[in-house]
Amino acid sequence: MEPIRNFAQLTSHLKSLNTRKRIAVVCANDSNTEYAITRVLNEGFAEFLMIGDSAILKKYPELKKHSQYVHAIHIEDPDEAALEAVRLVRAGEADILMKGIINTDNLLHAILDKEKGLLPAGKVLTHLAVMQIPTYDKLLFFSDAAVIPRPTLQQRIEMIWYAIRTSRCFGIQQPRIALIHCTEKVSPKFPHSLDYVNIVELAEAGEFGDVIIDGPLDVRTACERESGEIKGIVSPINGQADVLIFPNIESGNAFYKAISLFAKAEMAGLLQGPICPVVLPSRSDSALSKYYSIAMACLTCEKMI
Amino acid sequence: MEPIRNFAQLTSHLKSLNTRKRIAVVCANDSNTEYAITRVLNEGFAEFLMIGDSAILKKYPELKKHSQYVHAIHIEDPDEAALEAVRLVRAGEADILMKGIINTDNLLHAILDKEKGLLPAGKVLTHLAVMQIPTYDKLLFFSDAAVIPRPTLQQRIEMIWYAIRTSRCFGIQQPRIALIHCTEKVSPKFPHSLDYVNIVELAEAGEFGDVIIDGPLDVRTACERESGEIKGIVSPINGQADVLIFPNIESGNAFYKAISLFAKAEMAGLLQGPICPVVLPSRSDSALSKYYSIAMACLTCEKMI
Repeated sequence: MEPIRNFAQLTSHLKSLNTRKRIAVVCANDSNTEYAITRVLNEGFAEFLMIGDSAILKKYPELKKHSQYVHAIHIEDPDEAALEAVRLVRAGEADILMKGIINTDNLLHAILDKEKGLLPAGKVLTHLAVMQIPTYDKLLFFSDAAVIPRPTLQQRIEMIWYAIRTSRCFGIQQPRIALIHCTEKVSPKFPHSLDYVNIVELAEAGEFGDVIIDGPLDVRTACERESGEIKGIVSPINGQADVLIFPNIESGNAFYKAISLFAKAEMAGLLQGPICPVVLPSRSDSALSKYYSIAMACLTCEKMI
Repeated sequence: MEPIRNFAQLTSHLKSLNTRKRIAVVCANDSNTEYAITRVLNEGFAEFLMIGDSAILKKYPELKKHSQYVHAIHIEDPDEAALEAVRLVRAGEADILMKGIINTDNLLHAILDKEKGLLPAGKVLTHLAVMQIPTYDKLLFFSDAAVIPRPTLQQRIEMIWYAIRTSRCFGIQQPRIALIHCTEKVSPKFPHSLDYVNIVELAEAGEFGDVIIDGPLDVRTACERESGEIKGIVSPINGQADVLIFPNIESGNAFYKAISLFAKAEMAGLLQGPICPVVLPSRSDSALSKYYSIAMACLTCEKMI
C-alpha cells in the first residue's frame, strides 16, 4: 500500500475497498453531522445506525435517498441513546461510534462504564488527530490536543503506540515521530524532556519496531529540514515528521487551533483506547472535519484488535 | 496615532519620525544579522555600535556605505563584548541591545548581573513577540514563547503589563488580551485557569486601565468570531484578540513555531523587563525577523521608562 498523503487519497482508498463500515451515531441532530453523513453515503464507504430522535430522517430528506444504508433507532433520551450505541458496538453490530450533538461528558460516561463500556481495563484513553496542512507535503498526526492534560511516561508510550498503529493503517511503514518541546535541550526543569530520553532509548533498543523516534525537538525542527540545519541539529527525523507528540494538552491544543485557523488546515481526529474508533468532534469542528474523521475511523477500524 | 497593523506600516512609521535610535550589537558576525542591519541603515531609523571582532566591517562592504552610522568597537572576547554593550546602555550611549551570534546564555549573564546589568531589582524578565500572519487582519502579540516555563500569577500580570505598554506604542488604544487555555472552562485541574479568573477580576476593577481582558479562551475563539458563536461563547474579545497570553512556554512556543512555519507568519520579538529593549533572536529566526525585531525595539524604546 502506498502511503496516504492527503484526505482525498484517504477517501478514494476507502471507496476502492468496496465495503461499508457500520457507524452508530448518537443524536445526529445538527447540520454539520448531517453533511458528513450524507457525503459518506454518497461515497459509499459506510452505513449508519442513527440513534436518537428519528424525526431526523424527516428533517434531512437527503438521507432518505440512501434509506437502505440508514437505520433509525428511536430513543429520545440522549443518555439512553448513548448506552444503546455502546451496546451495539459490544454486540458486534457497529464498527464505529460517533457523537452527534449529545454532550461529550454524557457520551464518555457510557463509553467509560467499567462493566458495559468500550474501554478495556488498563487501556489509556487519549486523542489522536491528523492534519492536512496546505504548506506541508504529507499528513501530520499529533497527540494529545484534547484528553490527557499532562501525560505520564507510560501514557506517552501508549500515545506513541496508537500513533504507530494508525500511521501504519495510512500506509506509512516507518513513521517519523517527533517528541515536541520548545528547544532541543533536555532539562530536569521540564520533566517531559526526561521522559523523551527514556522513550528514545526504548526506540533505539527496537521496542517500537520499525519507527524513527527523536526528541526533544521543536515544531519547526520536526517539520522543516532547514531549521535543523541552521541550528546544527542532527536528527533522524530530518524535518519530515509524520507524528508530533506534544508535551501537554495546552501545547497540543494551541497547535491544533492555530494551524486550523491560520494555516487553513483540515483535521480529522479520534479517541484512542476504546475497542472501536470513536469520532468525538468538538462543537467548533467544521462539517468537513467531521467527514474526514469518519473516514479516518473507517480506515483504522480495519485492523482494530 | 493610527494603529500599526503590519510590519510595513511599522517601518514606514519609524522612517517618518526622522530620528535614529542607537543600537549596541554584540558579535554581529552572521549574514542574517548583517542583512537586518543593512536594511535598517538603508531605511535610516537607527545607527549601530558594532561590538566584537571589527573585521566584520571588512567582511560586509555594504556596511561601509553607511560608515557615519556604523561605529566598530573591537573586542574579540564575546563575554567582554557583552559587558561593554551593557555598559554603553547603562551610560546612556545606546538605546537598544542586540544579540549577534554570541551564545544567548553568555549575553544574558551580562544583562542579568545584579550590580552592572540591565534588569532592575524585582522586574520580571519575559519575552514578548508579535506576528504578522497573512490570514489575520492585524498584528498579533503573544507571550511567553521563550523565557518563563510556567509563569506565576504575578508573572502573568507583569506579562500583561508589558503587552499593554507595547501595544500602546503600536497605537492600539484598547488592546484586546486573550488568556489562552485549551477550553473556555475554568478548572482547578489547570491552575493557570484559576489565575485567569483573578486577572479578569482585576481588569474588570479597572486595574489595567482601558483594556479588554478575557479568558480562558482557546486560540480559535480568541482570534475568530465565528468559533465563539458556534460554541455560544460570549466574550468581549469577540474573536479579535491583539494579544495572546499563553499558559506555559510549551504552548507559546508550539504556537510560534507552527505559525511561522505553516502559516508563513513573520515575527518580531523582544525581551521585556530590562531598562532597554533587547533583541535576542534565536538561531533559526529569519533575516527578516531580525529586521522586524529591530524595528519593534526602535518603536518601543521611545516610551521606555
